[in-house]
Amino acid sequence: MSDRAEAAPRGLLIVYTGDGKGKTTAALGLCVRAVGYGMRVAIIQFVKGSWHYGEKDGVRRLAPEVSFEAMGKGFVGIIDDKLPRDEHEKAARETLAEVEQVITRGEHDIVILDEVNVALGLKLLTPQAVIDVVRKRPPKMHVVCTGRDAPPELIDIADLVTEMKEIKHPFRKGMKAQRGLDF
Amino acid sequence: MSDRAEAAPRGLLIVYTGDGKGKTTAALGLCVRAVGYGMRVAIIQFVKGSWHYGEKDGVRRLAPEVSFEAMGKGFVGIIDDKLPRDEHEKAARETLAEVEQVITRGEHDIVILDEVNVALGLKLLTPQAVIDVVRKRPPKMHVVCTGRDAPPELIDIADLVTEMKEIKHPFRKGMKAQRGLDF
Repeated sequence: MSDRAEAAPRGLLIVYTGDGKGKTTAALGLCVRAVGYGMRVAIIQFVKGSWHYGEKDGVRRLAPEVSFEAMGKGFVGIIDDKLPRDEHEKAARETLAEVEQVITRGEHDIVILDEVNVALGLKLLTPQAVIDVVRKRPPKMHVVCTGRDAPPELIDIADLVTEMKEIKHPFRKGMKAQRGLDF
Repeated sequence: MSDRAEAAPRGLLIVYTGDGKGKTTAALGLCVRAVGYGMRVAIIQFVKGSWHYGEKDGVRRLAPEVSFEAMGKGFVGIIDDKLPRDEHEKAARETLAEVEQVITRGEHDIVILDEVNVALGLKLLTPQAVIDVVRKRPPKMHVVCTGRDAPPELIDIADLVTEMKEIKHPFRKGMKAQRGLDF
């Protein structure tokens, strides 16, 4: 078992980034695994509306161990951008404040910051602001940051980073997004 | 919506490959999403023993929409290799035969061939044998192939391919594998 060394278990900072499919999907998969061990998971969304009802209904099946915290407080409109930029920044800051509360309350084993990297990529938040919050977690709590464009500062302090790289994508062939797969 | 073109929805062949974490995890996440839409998923494992009880218990929460088909018929011992090679080949062929039954029965919306790419990488199966089976699926069934070392032949015929690329891994820093995250 060369990959199981002797250091004590501690809470990891995990980053799923890259342009490929599977980042939020892998975070959902982590929920399944964690629930199997009776761990408690909180999911906090930084891009409101990025989850469709199927994902929410699927996660509901995993409740009460998995909860959406702060849902609906994430910011709106990265794509349908009708809001002024300062409102996006405000919403991102409010979502991060909610994350800070969840993290410092310490009731969860895993806290997922869904699409936080997108907010960072858009410079709605500074890497340092997110890092400061992540560092406040209890010693055994894992934090997962998903979304393309994870900044180097976050990758530097992360324990586990996977880049989901798009090799082939059906939309490029003119295929529709499909319920149950893409959303 | 530039990424939602006009072609009719059809069953996709999805490949999660690469050396990074998140391949089987993303497949588990697909189960959550699919269950939210009332879709039926079968998971067939090509590497027996690669799933620990937490993953199975988590998936059980998603039942009956998600079932382990052919579990325990996968082959044993890629790592703890005490079996002769021809027994591995036989077990891999038997698992593929089970996949063929599940696929042709057509009762599922998504069929996940967990770690089949590993069996292909070890040449326990030929890419053509797997491709022949995958091609027998009903028009709307999605098939997901996970595992490192997906062969070019499979990537060629796939619709969606994500490479999970390891950027940073805690085991390299001497950290233990952790329950709920790694297994």
